[in-house]
Formats: sequence, C-alpha cells, structure tokens
Amino acid sequence: MREVAIVGVGSTPFGRVEGTGLVELAVAACREALADSRVPRGQIQALYVGNFVGERLASQGSLAALLAGRLGLPGIPATKVEGACASGGIALRHGVLGIALGLYDFVLVAGAEKMTASPTPEVTAALATAGDEEREMRTGLTFPGAFGIIMREHMARYGTTREQVGLVSVKNHGLGAANPKAQFRRRVTLDEVLGSRLIADPLRLFDCPPISDGAAALVLCPADRGRDFHRTPVRVLGSGHATGPATLWETTDLTSFPATVRAAREAYAMARVTPAEVQVAEVHDCFTIAEIVATEDLGFFPKGKGGPAVEEGWTGLDGKVAVNPSGGLIAKGHPVGATGCAQVYELVRQLRGDAANQVRNAEVALAHNLGGTGVVSTVTILGRL
Amino acid sequence: MREVAIVGVGSTPFGRVEGTGLVELAVAACREALADSRVPRGQIQALYVGNFVGERLASQGSLAALLAGRLGLPGIPATKVEGACASGGIALRHGVLGIALGLYDFVLVAGAEKMTASPTPEVTAALATAGDEEREMRTGLTFPGAFGIIMREHMARYGTTREQVGLVSVKNHGLGAANPKAQFRRRVTLDEVLGSRLIADPLRLFDCPPISDGAAALVLCPADRGRDFHRTPVRVLGSGHATGPATLWETTDLTSFPATVRAAREAYAMARVTPAEVQVAEVHDCFTIAEIVATEDLGFFPKGKGGPAVEEGWTGLDGKVAVNPSGGLIAKGHPVGATGCAQVYELVRQLRGDAANQVRNAEVALAHNLGGTGVVSTVTILGRL
Repeated sequence: MREVAIVGVGSTPFGRVEGTGLVELAVAACREALADSRVPRGQIQALYVGNFVGERLASQGSLAALLAGRLGLPGIPATKVEGACASGGIALRHGVLGIALGLYDFVLVAGAEKMTASPTPEVTAALATAGDEEREMRTGLTFPGAFGIIMREHMARYGTTREQVGLVSVKNHGLGAANPKAQFRRRVTLDEVLGSRLIADPLRLFDCPPISDGAAALVLCPADRGRDFHRTPVRVLGSGHATGPATLWETTDLTSFPATVRAAREAYAMARVTPAEVQVAEVHDCFTIAEIVATEDLGFFPKGKGGPAVEEGWTGLDGKVAVNPSGGLIAKGHPVGATGCAQVYELVRQLRGDAANQVRNAEVALAHNLGGTGVVSTVTILGRL
Repeated sequence: MREVAIVGVGSTPFGRVEGTGLVELAVAACREALADSRVPRGQIQALYVGNFVGERLASQGSLAALLAGRLGLPGIPATKVEGACASGGIALRHGVLGIALGLYDFVLVAGAEKMTASPTPEVTAALATAGDEEREMRTGLTFPGAFGIIMREHMARYGTTREQVGLVSVKNHGLGAANPKAQFRRRVTLDEVLGSRLIADPLRLFDCPPISDGAAALVLCPADRGRDFHRTPVRVLGSGHATGPATLWETTDLTSFPATVRAAREAYAMARVTPAEVQVAEVHDCFTIAEIVATEDLGFFPKGKGGPAVEEGWTGLDGKVAVNPSGGLIAKGHPVGATGCAQVYELVRQLRGDAANQVRNAEVALAHNLGGTGVVSTVTILGRL
C-alpha cells in the first residue's frame, strides 16, 4: 500500500449558517481545501462525500455527484457514503484507500450537513435514524437518552463523578472560545454546566452538542508527492473502520464501544503507533460522557480512569494528550456528516503548527469518529511528513 | 488488479411486501446470496450496501453497519453508499474494487429499499431528492416530468414514435410475466400502454416503474478462487462509474446521458469488449424512453435508432441484444437502492443458464444503472468464468 498525504484542508465556520444550503456549504469547504493545496482542480480523480440526513433535512440526495458537477469536476466518480455521525470518517477512509491501493493519485474528500433550517423535532427524528428503528428507536429512545444511560452506568461502575463529566464541557467550551470556526465561542464554568437545563438525566444542556450547519474538506495525494502540493503535507499513518452493536440491548458493556476499540486497533497496527505516542486527538464527544468513553476505548487511559484524567487536566492543551483542541463537537458544533472531516481539518492544522489552540510540538495525532451508539467507528492516525 | 468473480446471488421478490421492513428485506437477500455461495459467513471481510431514501421513508440510517450486525458479521467495515437510483451499482463497484485491489478476498454487496409503506406524495418527494433541489427540483419538476421532456425531444429529433416507446413497455411486461421475482406478472398490449393514464405528457402509466419494496445481494471473491465457492462463478470483466450534469438545464443534449457514456467507455475498455459483443443487458429503464436512450448511450444502436430497434425486435429475447430479460424496472419493479444489484442478480443467472427468461448461450452481459436524470451511472460487464 502506498502512503497517503493530506495536502489541502478547508472548513466552513460551524453553526447556524442562514441562507446557505447543503450543497453550497460543501462547495465552500471544497474550494477552500483546493485553494489550500497546489493540486490543480483538473487533477482530482475521485470525490467521496460524507453526509447523513441530506435527503431528509435538505431534500438533497445525489450529493456527491451533484458536488462534483458544481465544483467543475465533471465526470469523475463521486460517491456519497453514510454511516450516521461517522459518515465523514468513512468518506476519508475511502479516499485514503483509493490512493493507498493505487487506484487514484488525487482525491477530494468532503463532509457536510445542513441541520438548522429544519424544526428541532424533525432534526431529532432524523438523527434517531442512526439507531435501529425497528428494534430500539421505535420505543422512543433518543441519543441524549442513550448517552444518559451510558453516563449513569459509567458513574455507577467506575465512580466517575458528575463534576468530572462536566469538566469535559468546561474544557471544550474553553477551547472553542478561541477557535474562529467554532459555533460556541464562550467559556462556561462548571457551575453553569451543572446548573444547565436537564436534557436526559444525568445529561444537561451543556453536556450536549448543538444542532449545526457546516462542511469540511480534505485533498489527498500519495505521500511521496506530498511536498509538491503543500509546504507542510501531513501523512496518514493509519486508518481503521469497524462496526459494533446497533442497540444498547445488544451491548454487553455499556461503557465501551467495540467499534471504536476495533477501529483503533486496526489504525494503531497500521501506523505502528501506541496510544501513549498520540499527543493530540479529536474524539467524538457527541456528549461529554462520550469523550471520556472514547479516551478509554482509544487506550489513552485505562477503563474507568477517563473521568479522573479530565479532572487532573491530562486531556487539556498541555496534558498527556490534548483532547479536542478544536472545542470538539460540543463547542465547535456537530453538523453530523461533516464531523469526521472537520476533526482531520483540525489535526492537520495542529501538525502544520497553525491551529487556533496549538499543541506544542505535535507530531502524532488521532481522529476518532463514531456513529450512533457505536454502530460504526473510524480512527485515523496522522503524522508529520 | 485482480479479477473478481460473483459466486452467490440473492433477491427478494419485488413489489409490495407487507410487514417486512427495510433491514429485514436486506437480510433476506443477503442470506439467500450467502446460501447460494459456498463462502462461509465468517469469511466475509466487508459489506457495501446501496440504499437511497432509507432515512426518509424507513427512518433507518446506518443501514450497512446495522445489517452487518444482523447478519452475524460483527465488526467488519460496512459502508452504505448513496447515488440515488444508482446506489446499488455504486455498492457493487466498491465491492469489486475492494477485491480487485487486494484489500479483501470476500465481500458481500447488497442493495435495498422499502417504499410502499409511505404515502405516495412522500415517496415522490423523496425520489425528487435525486435531483438538484436548489436549482431545479424546487421549481416543481418531478422525474416523470423530466423523462417526459426527454421523450418529447427524442421524438422530435429522431422521429422516434409513441408506439416504439410503448413497445418497450409491452416487451418488458411480457418478460416480467415469466419472472417469479417481478412485481408485475401480467402481459400488456400496446393499446393498453397507449391508453393508460397520462402521467407526464407524453409518458403514460405503463411507461413508468412502480413503487416497490425489495433487496438483492451478491457475494464476491477473487476470480481465481471462484470455482471453490460456486460451480458456475461469473467473472466481472469490467466496471465503470461516472457522473454527469445534475439538471436538465445544464444538459447540452437531452437525448443522451454523459455519465452513461463515460461509465460504459471505462467498463468496455477494462473488459476489452465491444458493444456488439454484449448478448444480454439489464439497463436502467426507469421509464420506457430511458431504455431507448440507454441502448443508444451504451453503443448497442446508433443515436436515434433505439426506437426502430425495439420495433424490429432487436432488443427482445432472441434479438441482437436481449434487453431487460428480467422485465426491467418497469415490470420487475424499482426499489431504487436495490436496482443496481438486482440487475446483476439477473445477469448472473443468465450467465449460469438458469434465468427465468433465458437468453441462449449468453456469454457477455452488461448492467447499466443510472441515478436521477443522469447525475451518476455505473456500468458492469460480466462474463462466464
């Protein structure tokens, strides 16, 4: 397999983007990524797009083919992939494989979602399609509900405290405040988190991500040509993609996602990197508790120690591993199909050394994208070229 | 690139399948395909699923990951791809690439759609998301409307007659009558077609496909191991995937789809096959006129001669090239995400020699899948191993 480099990145601001539709968001991110690289547009041979509920919330299917035309890339194979909130990570996975396996030399990858133009109940219903409709969601379970159950179990089993979980929100909002692309730019205190409106006990409003519009895009090429197309190319060291149980009732351990564990194992093996070597990570904090679970499943901390790790500051910018320097889904925003690409957008900027919340001397970075309550996950490990 | 074989196929009956949901349809087709091959379930390394409007009509996203779990294939990378009505063809394309490029040895590919449980206006709205919502569909254009415009142009430019187009419906309903998996099992006369209800002038009811439920699935492995897993494996000779204009107003020629022409060129070159060598084809007759356009775009007949070819019987079972022996989308049914896989299901059975409407001595077969009004197309060429 050939090594792959990322030589261009782009991202719209995340948040409520009035008057801009799904396709236009994707176009904007792709144009920024293409302009950031020196790959001529005409060299792009394939396009992968991650998008979750475009047909439902934006009445737009065929997004990848449509986007290829809109970008002036006529004729190229263009594929939309969907794996709920992990759609962006799956799109990147396919772009990486296309180059690694020698099928293409230049691939454009994008993720996009338009959510704020729809009524909130319809957004909630659309997001719930990430779960098993016939066998679980039909009972009325929502994703805040599912992660509330997970949080309660984590607290009961490991002694994780409500305060430790809340500190994830304090950290991520603090980081988001300095990120110009983030949806929420205001720091919050632990008192504010713990005093915010109850959503799905014990999760409160500030434990949850917002409804967001946004898109992010990446330009890929073979690593041995990376320097021709960007002065600081970033190398894809490893990539993993795995599935897990679709429902809570099939889950044998509510505090761990097997899809994350498997995808991470695959990515670490390919990258020949250990969890201890990762200096900065963007993990799928679709809720505060999900960040703690992810840092354990990814091997940054032993099972049950993710809560104390937050309290000790080990996941802060100067910690053992800086987690979600972008502000994460909770503060940066979570346009679901875009998230997997936006995580890598942030990490490429970290490895280039020009991130908004720069981690010092970052050399190895990890992106973790999760769909549903763990039905699918991708893990991507990046390094300096 | 390694050569790829298809060693198992499965398909549900198409039509209104009461009480069976999207996931169960997909499970049924996959189980049949796995049972048809000798590939042990535990050997399957990846799953690709084509599905278009599952989030919208069945409240079910995450379909690929969900299906992997339901089939007892825990952990494997499972990816849903979406390209409107070409979703199934794109899923197959990715399965083929995964084996051809050496990433996997055994891949399961499926396509599925559940449409009949939703009110017809919602189905129409969901299907319209295949077009460009912001720049065309918002005006009120529907797919019958778009193909009515295409039919009118084909008639005006080439002298194609209303009767020639109607004969596609007569042929396909006649073939569907003998196909036990087809939704419509009744022959129709030309008078019935021409006297049926006007849908979008000049298209009438019997020029259109029904709303359908259904799923189809395929098991793939390297061609050099094909005989280990089926007594009559079928070889994938060529595969093409291309995009084209998303809207009618960007189309320079209303009577041809550049995506089809490009995908066919790629597939023919890879297969080293000429159009004249294709003996049997399943083409995307989402409307009668679409079959005529496809037979021209695929090079079976010169531009403008597709109408007379039908009249002369050249696309019949004993014709120059047997087109849509399954009954096509018009008679077999069109559960949109399933169609690309169902076409290949039929052709594999043709090449095995056990199809319901068997073409004598079929050795080279072609499947053509189209999304929207030509925004994306896949072409797959198959041969005996």
